[in-house]
Amino acid sequence: MSKTTLTISSKTYSSWSLRGWLLARFAGLEFEEVLIPPDDAAARAEILLLSPSILVPCLRHQGVTVWDTLAIAEYLNEIRPKAGLLPEDRAARAHCRAICGEMHSGFAAMRSALPMNLKGNFPGMKVWSRAQADIDRITAIWTECLTRYGGPYLFGQRTMADAMYAPVVTRFVTYGVMLDPEPVAYCKQILAMPELQEWIAAARAEPDEISELDVEF
Amino acid sequence: MSKTTLTISSKTYSSWSLRGWLLARFAGLEFEEVLIPPDDAAARAEILLLSPSILVPCLRHQGVTVWDTLAIAEYLNEIRPKAGLLPEDRAARAHCRAICGEMHSGFAAMRSALPMNLKGNFPGMKVWSRAQADIDRITAIWTECLTRYGGPYLFGQRTMADAMYAPVVTRFVTYGVMLDPEPVAYCKQILAMPELQEWIAAARAEPDEISELDVEF
Repeated sequence: MSKTTLTISSKTYSSWSLRGWLLARFAGLEFEEVLIPPDDAAARAEILLLSPSILVPCLRHQGVTVWDTLAIAEYLNEIRPKAGLLPEDRAARAHCRAICGEMHSGFAAMRSALPMNLKGNFPGMKVWSRAQADIDRITAIWTECLTRYGGPYLFGQRTMADAMYAPVVTRFVTYGVMLDPEPVAYCKQILAMPELQEWIAAARAEPDEISELDVEF
Repeated sequence: MSKTTLTISSKTYSSWSLRGWLLARFAGLEFEEVLIPPDDAAARAEILLLSPSILVPCLRHQGVTVWDTLAIAEYLNEIRPKAGLLPEDRAARAHCRAICGEMHSGFAAMRSALPMNLKGNFPGMKVWSRAQADIDRITAIWTECLTRYGGPYLFGQRTMADAMYAPVVTRFVTYGVMLDPEPVAYCKQILAMPELQEWIAAARAEPDEISELDVEF
């Protein structure tokens, strides 16, 4: 049988890599990581938000190749239905997919103003209004879910939505974004996941191949 | 039982409204349209690509509210499994979701340079390089699917992928984008769908509430 692999790029900067990797771990999949160097053009474009990449993340499993994070999430849910990547209740499942879709296609202002950087620490950074509107929408999503489903994860138990929003949690830490108590409690819940701790440790051990100034104005 | 509704905005300009509406029609769902006027702030932001909207498209069905086009597609697939919104084969299904995901989160250069405009006709418009790269990727996706699955739709029979790419077909017509024979044949297949013809006729009957100059530089 062919090896199961997940292609990812920088653990420090690639938020989509982190999402795909968390999803595969949540699903209990055994896989090998294939690393695309961050100076690869496609990986750089993805990190710099110029374009989504069909290279990262990309799952290869039993002859099937799946790219795009949401497609990977749905595929993992099909092959590991007991992992609970989607809620059991139909209405909650629709809600889960809706907020995953919002993260997948939206929040461009927040993503470009507050890029994921697991080595960085920029407390009190001034957040411009459009990025703040994205942050407000994200915390409203979280608060509504935590209230409706009772926490500690967005839909009670851990689902694909928690993987989708995990990189946002790290951004809020990196840039010292001020939050209300309920979103703070959710951030702590996510940061305490052993899988995320493992990823952050690996990111901090990465050689720093992208210079802070290596971004166009 | 509560009414089933689909909230949409401009039929001329809102490509996400078109996708959601086609998906509901492909699924054979009976629904009422709820129209948000195009001068509504959220509808305008969605049309001008400033942000995805949680208002448009939005499906309400048996007490469940689903927004985000991909979440609506998955929901419709669950309640109407026989409509074939996803391919039956697992690998093809993963492929279908991957290219739907690419459309959902990507092609920003093409979407902003060639906005959907079902009343417009701008043949020979100069396409800048990054938008052309998006167009090249889209036609490569189509050609690969048509070759692998035999056409006439992307996965043989009609699936959610055809709804996701239908607005792109209209853009290629509006802006007179030059294409190879295989993508041209696919465009003709999509344009011949009675559902799309019905939508286009309704768009052309809409009062023109957005002026061509009403877009910021």
